[in-house]
Amino acid sequence: MSVSTVRPDVYAQVQHFYARQMQALDAGRFADYANTFTEDGTFQHSPGAQPAVGRAGIVAELERFHERFADDPVQRRHWFNHVALEPLPDGSLSSTVYALIVTVRPGGTPKIGPSCVVHDVLEITEEGVLTRSRLVTHDQEAA
Amino acid sequence: MSVSTVRPDVYAQVQHFYARQMQALDAGRFADYANTFTEDGTFQHSPGAQPAVGRAGIVAELERFHERFADDPVQRRHWFNHVALEPLPDGSLSSTVYALIVTVRPGGTPKIGPSCVVHDVLEITEEGVLTRSRLVTHDQEAA
Amino acid sequence: MSVSTVRPDVYAQVQHFYARQMQALDAGRFADYANTFTEDGTFQHSPGAQPAVGRAGIVAELERFHERFADDPVQRRHWFNHVALEPLPDGSLSSTVYALIVTVRPGGTPKIGPSCVVHDVLEITEEGVLTRSRLVTHDQEAA
Repeated sequence: MSVSTVRPDVYAQVQHFYARQMQALDAGRFADYANTFTEDGTFQHSPGAQPAVGRAGIVAELERFHERFADDPVQRRHWFNHVALEPLPDGSLSSTVYALIVTVRPGGTPKIGPSCVVHDVLEITEEGVLTRSRLVTHDQEAA
Repeated sequence: MSVSTVRPDVYAQVQHFYARQMQALDAGRFADYANTFTEDGTFQHSPGAQPAVGRAGIVAELERFHERFADDPVQRRHWFNHVALEPLPDGSLSSTVYALIVTVRPGGTPKIGPSCVVHDVLEITEEGVLTRSRLVTHDQEAA
Repeated sequence: MSVSTVRPDVYAQVQHFYARQMQALDAGRFADYANTFTEDGTFQHSPGAQPAVGRAGIVAELERFHERFADDPVQRRHWFNHVALEPLPDGSLSSTVYALIVTVRPGGTPKIGPSCVVHDVLEITEEGVLTRSRLVTHDQEAA
């Protein structure tokens, strides 16, 4: 395994970015979540799905997904673990992250799953980190 | 979502602080845990509870809570995820963190839950990080 | 609790090291995993087990363990939390980390457990972090 050339301060910055990005998603702040992507960012929540493209497209996809839970007081928490970064030739970063979705309903106990892997390309800009593309794979789907 | 102005080294320092703080709690080192709070720190383990105030008060509250488990060889592990920091006007940090409590008994499998959110105010001092106040909210309690 | 003297950049470097190390293990890249240990590194997956010694020994131990799953399309994910580091007199670091093993099979939901604690000694070299020794304890085993 080659030695990572990603600086520790960039590593911490990316972790903090993910914390804010996923707290926005789980709080239903879809515009905030979409703004963590580049203008032309893509978001593909499973390998077979059509990717949502652009910030407006990402918001629309999230609203569509959440419509079916309109009357369901569910709280989702996307947990991340083991952020692994690799520099790409154009200066962006490939990021591979474990994810577990925690789901809770009032009076209930948390349901854990599915187990996923997030495959991102990240841009480090002067204003901070942005996601250029995101593909989520699911462990329970045999390869 | 505004760009965070929290430095990456402070972010890593806070993560490390939480690792040590929660390992102290889970090991039953209540005085060590209380010493991670400011002298007048407050700890409120649920929105309806009276906050414990001061280090001695926090130790007393923890001892009271754990009395009922005196004969129960339970091991708790407080997992944290997605530490999100925001600077406050007085130089302290607002910290919002996901938490899951993992509970294990001899010969058993881990029980996961409840799912919580930790709302802290942190002070960054020359000696390190301290918790000034902590409020824990619980996802299974409908808002 | 004494103030940690581990620098924040080293803390982030260790987190990144663990991300890459455990993604190698979970992907079945046993040689990559073994290469994250020192040449004479030791790996003891439970207190009663004989430690595997050296990189070839670690690979052999992993291959032996995984033989029984040869026909089992299981995906394991080793989650880590709360990395706590303490400097040792010889310049290495003692590292104490929570771990949960997430296990998924095609079409299934993730099984969470066991809950473990990883006790590492880490060397920080010019080429990066290396594990000198690893002992894993299991919470469900009464002390």
